[in-house]
Amino acid sequence: MKTLAGLGEFPFIEAIARSARGKGSRRGVVLGIGDDAARLRLRRDAIVTVDSLVEGVHFRRTWLEPAELGRRAFRVAVSDVAACGADARFVLLALAAPSSYPARNALALVRGLIDDAARAGAHLVGGNVCRSPVLSLAVTVVGEAGPRVLTRDSARIGDTVYVTGRLGGAAAAVRHLRRPPRTAASSEGRRRAPPLAPYTKPPVRLDVGRSLARLRAIGALIDVSDGLVQDLGHICERSGVSAEIDPRAVPVARGASLEDALFGGDDYELLFTARPGAASERGVDEALVAGKCRAIPIGRIVEPRDAKVVSSTDGRALVGGYAHFSKGRRP
Amino acid sequence: MKTLAGLGEFPFIEAIARSARGKGSRRGVVLGIGDDAARLRLRRDAIVTVDSLVEGVHFRRTWLEPAELGRRAFRVAVSDVAACGADARFVLLALAAPSSYPARNALALVRGLIDDAARAGAHLVGGNVCRSPVLSLAVTVVGEAGPRVLTRDSARIGDTVYVTGRLGGAAAAVRHLRRPPRTAASSEGRRRAPPLAPYTKPPVRLDVGRSLARLRAIGALIDVSDGLVQDLGHICERSGVSAEIDPRAVPVARGASLEDALFGGDDYELLFTARPGAASERGVDEALVAGKCRAIPIGRIVEPRDAKVVSSTDGRALVGGYAHFSKGRRP
Repeated sequence: MKTLAGLGEFPFIEAIARSARGKGSRRGVVLGIGDDAARLRLRRDAIVTVDSLVEGVHFRRTWLEPAELGRRAFRVAVSDVAACGADARFVLLALAAPSSYPARNALALVRGLIDDAARAGAHLVGGNVCRSPVLSLAVTVVGEAGPRVLTRDSARIGDTVYVTGRLGGAAAAVRHLRRPPRTAASSEGRRRAPPLAPYTKPPVRLDVGRSLARLRAIGALIDVSDGLVQDLGHICERSGVSAEIDPRAVPVARGASLEDALFGGDDYELLFTARPGAASERGVDEALVAGKCRAIPIGRIVEPRDAKVVSSTDGRALVGGYAHFSKGRRP
Repeated sequence: MKTLAGLGEFPFIEAIARSARGKGSRRGVVLGIGDDAARLRLRRDAIVTVDSLVEGVHFRRTWLEPAELGRRAFRVAVSDVAACGADARFVLLALAAPSSYPARNALALVRGLIDDAARAGAHLVGGNVCRSPVLSLAVTVVGEAGPRVLTRDSARIGDTVYVTGRLGGAAAAVRHLRRPPRTAASSEGRRRAPPLAPYTKPPVRLDVGRSLARLRAIGALIDVSDGLVQDLGHICERSGVSAEIDPRAVPVARGASLEDALFGGDDYELLFTARPGAASERGVDEALVAGKCRAIPIGRIVEPRDAKVVSSTDGRALVGGYAHFSKGRRP
């Protein structure tokens, strides 16, 4: 099997450029892959974010097909653009891979990213490839702001807290994938296996983000990447408020536990607050029809307290979530 | 010594945000570190590029102080913006580091990048931090196009080929750094040690790029990252021409060989072509005064031949340069 070393850097880049050329809209791409830098035309403010996936930390090669890995890398990164209510327009990929990595896999990975980005309206315009002892992808997404950019700091006391889908599925999938093979292969292991899609194919909530950004009733918005409680905590901290959530109202993904849903992370659903009232509720429901998901109310924003996020059933402080540099903490 | 695991992800990000806030111009930063994505305002086209440094491939921890590593990561990435003749405006850093990496070093690294970026007119507006078995930095630079963006495809037959400084110094420095400690410590090793600055502190040629972009006489431009011959080959390929260079005219850095200068890479000087003639020469010389460097003519653009780059002394084809996924090839 031909490796990246066998294929060589420049033929690899040329193959990437060929794949990118045919895909998605080239609107705004004045200069794409092939020069020193991409030249991009935007009519509104640029929304820029970068996110990384590192082998052995965020994934193992056995967990995802190469194309799924490329897709996941794009979706994890573009989620931050969705959380601003912006359009995704351009993508850059910094790919680091061992010389022994199969060329076919590297191309499938990049094409998985290109195809998924194209479906989301974004075009691969540049990047970097280099050698590395571990496979890693750093994806930069350049978006374009809409008339309003949603932020974390705009929650108000009295707001209802919503989430756009079931949570904890990715955490449950990763726990299953991490099991020793023997356990996974046992009949009990198979019977209880959660769906892997929440991990292999996280949702793209760009449509939802854009629709919500048009509603005056929307307060703060964030994507659930570190876990519901931790990300709601980010909203509270930036907005100077606290939040009460009803754990019984939190939508739990199939095969996941309530703990996975509260603290698991990697869900990439949107978490947002909206002014209370029937008109706001109707607006939120209508805004989400386009995104084919539902807004599930799970709590409300309250006056600032010692704890940022508390349970409305027993007043218990909720603390925990994914933290880099340590193993995922759970309370 | 406190590690990144001991410090924790969010206090680390908060410390980065504090360091970034005080440095450089915040012009155009509508939303910086602390939300889902940065929101940036540009008046002209965006120039976007990403570049990575990976431990064990591009550096070893013993080769550079953490602040030097941050500076080098910025300079390697911003060089592509200089090669477009654009301004550097915003930076994003995707930093991957082992949990055991000292927090003090991680902060020094990021501050080295922030400070150097600020001197170049660019502001750290976002990024990502995560755990990784090896230290790596992927730096995204967002620049702003000037009235003209310089590209690789605009060399014309008859153009003079120039380079902005001495070449091969980084290759010589890396060869020295790679030596086994015993050799390096011997008196002969010390006596023959080349300066390390070309590697630890590559030049920033933003001023030069901008000045050259104003000159109508300039043809194609690229930065020397893969080696003079290989990068000139990129210009030739994109412009549909060949180039003749006089190896005796190529400026060789102190401690480096002619082979280092021709094929070494990592120099980050600018390599460009300009229409021939006295007016053009004068313009080039004046344009480079601001950048405190000299334009050294090393050859000329000729009709396309079998070989992209040939020696003007003996007509020999010159081939070679840095290639990722293999060890640096030298002819």
